[in-house]
Amino acid sequence: QITQTGKASYYADSFDGKKTASGETFRQNSLTAAHPNLPFGTKVRVLNISNGRSVKVRINDRGPFTKGRMIDVSKKAAKKLGMVSTGVATVQIKYKKKQKA
Amino acid sequence: QITQTGKASYYADSFDGKKTASGETFRQNSLTAAHPNLPFGTKVRVLNISNGRSVKVRINDRGPFTKGRMIDVSKKAAKKLGMVSTGVATVQIKYKKKQKA
Repeated sequence: QITQTGKASYYADSFDGKKTASGETFRQNSLTAAHPNLPFGTKVRVLNISNGRSVKVRINDRGPFTKGRMIDVSKKAAKKLGMVSTGVATVQIKYKKKQKA
Repeated sequence: QITQTGKASYYADSFDGKKTASGETFRQNSLTAAHPNLPFGTKVRVLNISNGRSVKVRINDRGPFTKGRMIDVSKKAAKKLGMVSTGVATVQIKYKKKQKA
């Protein structure tokens, strides 16, 4: 199991219904996320280290490519993580190496 | 001429050499930027309203799709805007409507 710590942000509503890099349509109401390089389909446990809340998401998009960001989650995931009002949160992500394609 | 105000961030070095949404290869050393919907090729004047510095960039990528972000600029542009250490800046962007495809 691999652990990474970094900053999470969440998708703007304007991206709802648009095509992700995996070809899937993005839905704010699904538990998905964008990561710069994890294989599509990887299941990732995201923990908001400021409040202890966590959620499991599936990687189906590429990004964020912004300096200092590690993962972008859907709004549904952001709600579960309690980070909708803050916008950005320091999180720890965990995933299994064997999921890699 | 159209003006928008919002938050700018800049690309992570890991994206250097990757393909942008326009098909062009991304270079941190070029004066380019990502915007969610402006046509590729649009020339945009970006003004850092906290220090008065500005730079002209060409849109060649899509993004940022993160809540509360308006534009992602290359590192070269971020240097000209004096926002490398802050990472995020409140900017005003200006462009001409007639550039739209």
